[in-house]
Amino acid sequence: MCDTAVTPGSSVAGAGRTVPQGGDSNGPRVVLGVEAPLKLECGAELGPFTVAYQTWGTLNADKSNAVLVCHALTGDQYVLGTNPITGRQGWWPFMVGPGKVVDTDRYFVICANVLGGCMGTTGPKEIDPETGRPYGLGFPVITIADMVRAQAMLLDHLGIPDLFCVIGGSMGGMQVLQWAAAHPERVFAAVPIACAAKHSAQNIGFHEVGRQAVMADPNWRGGDYLRYGVNPRSGLAVARMAAHITYLSETALHQKFGRSLQDRDALSFGFDADFQVESYLRHQGSSFVDRFDANSYLYITRAMDYFDLAADYGGSLAAAFAGTRTRFCVVSFTSDWLFPTAENRAIVHALNAVAANVSFVEIDTDKGHDSFLLDEPELFETLRGFLNGAAEHRGLNGGGGSEG
Amino acid sequence: MCDTAVTPGSSVAGAGRTVPQGGDSNGPRVVLGVEAPLKLECGAELGPFTVAYQTWGTLNADKSNAVLVCHALTGDQYVLGTNPITGRQGWWPFMVGPGKVVDTDRYFVICANVLGGCMGTTGPKEIDPETGRPYGLGFPVITIADMVRAQAMLLDHLGIPDLFCVIGGSMGGMQVLQWAAAHPERVFAAVPIACAAKHSAQNIGFHEVGRQAVMADPNWRGGDYLRYGVNPRSGLAVARMAAHITYLSETALHQKFGRSLQDRDALSFGFDADFQVESYLRHQGSSFVDRFDANSYLYITRAMDYFDLAADYGGSLAAAFAGTRTRFCVVSFTSDWLFPTAENRAIVHALNAVAANVSFVEIDTDKGHDSFLLDEPELFETLRGFLNGAAEHRGLNGGGGSEG
Repeated sequence: MCDTAVTPGSSVAGAGRTVPQGGDSNGPRVVLGVEAPLKLECGAELGPFTVAYQTWGTLNADKSNAVLVCHALTGDQYVLGTNPITGRQGWWPFMVGPGKVVDTDRYFVICANVLGGCMGTTGPKEIDPETGRPYGLGFPVITIADMVRAQAMLLDHLGIPDLFCVIGGSMGGMQVLQWAAAHPERVFAAVPIACAAKHSAQNIGFHEVGRQAVMADPNWRGGDYLRYGVNPRSGLAVARMAAHITYLSETALHQKFGRSLQDRDALSFGFDADFQVESYLRHQGSSFVDRFDANSYLYITRAMDYFDLAADYGGSLAAAFAGTRTRFCVVSFTSDWLFPTAENRAIVHALNAVAANVSFVEIDTDKGHDSFLLDEPELFETLRGFLNGAAEHRGLNGGGGSEG
Repeated sequence: MCDTAVTPGSSVAGAGRTVPQGGDSNGPRVVLGVEAPLKLECGAELGPFTVAYQTWGTLNADKSNAVLVCHALTGDQYVLGTNPITGRQGWWPFMVGPGKVVDTDRYFVICANVLGGCMGTTGPKEIDPETGRPYGLGFPVITIADMVRAQAMLLDHLGIPDLFCVIGGSMGGMQVLQWAAAHPERVFAAVPIACAAKHSAQNIGFHEVGRQAVMADPNWRGGDYLRYGVNPRSGLAVARMAAHITYLSETALHQKFGRSLQDRDALSFGFDADFQVESYLRHQGSSFVDRFDANSYLYITRAMDYFDLAADYGGSLAAAFAGTRTRFCVVSFTSDWLFPTAENRAIVHALNAVAANVSFVEIDTDKGHDSFLLDEPELFETLRGFLNGAAEHRGLNGGGGSEG
């Protein structure tokens, strides 16, 4: 494994090149890796590359109130407000905003589209400067560690030496763990939610089903679909449908849909979407392909599959956190069968083994893995308490962005 | 709902026409519905139609030792011996055979390929006599009740008035429940294993993913692929991969594969099957398409989705079993998340509500839904006890097929 060794204090504001904003822009973007490329875990070098991000709130004078939000597999940098691509609300309005748990009146909140993504950060759909064509499968396979390195370079560019908090759910939680392991001095508090320190066989299996669905679509064209002006919509929609089931719980699906019929009084004795759950999943599939790139889906699922934090530390998860001074709050959900509590508890055990400062809460809910995105009062109450305590220790007093 | 009202005692040996056996035959086949077609639940009539089946053991003189084995979604009539299509062992050698729980030295065991199947019984790949071409989507949508009606007609043909036992797992268990509800006088003992009286929203969702994967394959051609000499292999393989995950358990996948790599020492940083679990699922997908018809997959998954026994009895599952004299043994597995114990327990509660004779056992195993197909000593011990007790009440004493 190579490492770019972005160390605390090495941050240089302006190390990247800010991209001028056009009317069709996805928000702030910065070109990084201009002077030195990002060395990826696969051995390839990437640079220059672009990171698209959003911020909310104000960075205080001593730069101690920055919170990095890490998004999940199909998330993006549009945590709040209107997503310019989908026209819909950002993905974490319950958690982030003025007066919310991640209080934008108090913290300077940053979220960047991950490396390999499709919302402005360099990924397989962007132009490979070497060929003048979209990367497609020519894009190097990236890892969670690579995503985190790119984020660290963004912080350097923004002149932020360290983070008050890194927070995220699912793949976002994997990034939180990677941050805490690789850059402990830069992370005051860490909140990994509904995640795991390694991707399970079952989860790899579901991801592989999704990838095979995409690759089976003749419009995928070996990953070169953009060149041919086509799109493997059907394959990606199937991938999303399968994945979406795993984000919910049997109870949630039962309560939401049961065996209710869709716009009809009786079974059709055909292959239409007779049941509401079929109609719902079809909609999830077809709306997803309007906003997501099929190759990005392959790359990001692969990054999750490859995640095995202990493997990078001689097989010991505890070793990944040895000597950490970061405060952790680990959260799981009772009905999450994608990242069940046992996986989250394994993180807690590793942290306990190195006498880390760690809180753990398993939240009782029947809403499944996606609970972290939903209105879960117990989640908010837990995290509000944790963040307030951490802020006090950090010397972040009172609300507003003016405490500096 | 229409009903063919096959009543006890209406059986007429020879009502069907036995099909001569050729060298490429799938085993015994009979043409049924010659004199009167099978009235399907969808309103259509089907007939004449073929049922392919296998038998083992000897029917005793008073015809009291017949056991009907009902197969699951992708099963077939080859319970034992070598399956002539796959060249592999039949699917239930642990349960059925000389000296086994379903003892072919003692019982006359029958298993028929279900209506809509692809192993010799009439289904979408067979020739529609009206058009001279394969049915494709012109085949009527069939239900579990239709499958059971066809089996009842087969029993009439074989001259078997009633069954000592009906047994099956998963979709086979649904057929067992349907038999017990629709033909209580013909069922002395019933063993529904790892099933449910209605298909859940989550399960319908997984089936819909599989169907969409098949239909997204351009080679599916609106169901007319046989006419064009093509086969939606990729789509069906993806469907099978997704389904196969649901047949196991997270623990089973973890123990079997974990994050072990396939034929390599390090990650490839590509999209090959790096992990054993990926390779395994790909193999499951590709080997499945060699033996199964894509349209049959659509029809049989649909039949399972449509299954809701209570709905046919005014919304009361108990009403489906009112007055039953059948002895039941309901079996579930702790790690089965496709048909979890709660679903099986609902069947038991309904049977209790009508004071039926019912045993229930939840078997502690980490092998998931497919446990019913595997070597599970506790399962065999339970069912051996149940069947021996039932056989005693039935007056079936001792081994061998000579007690008649």
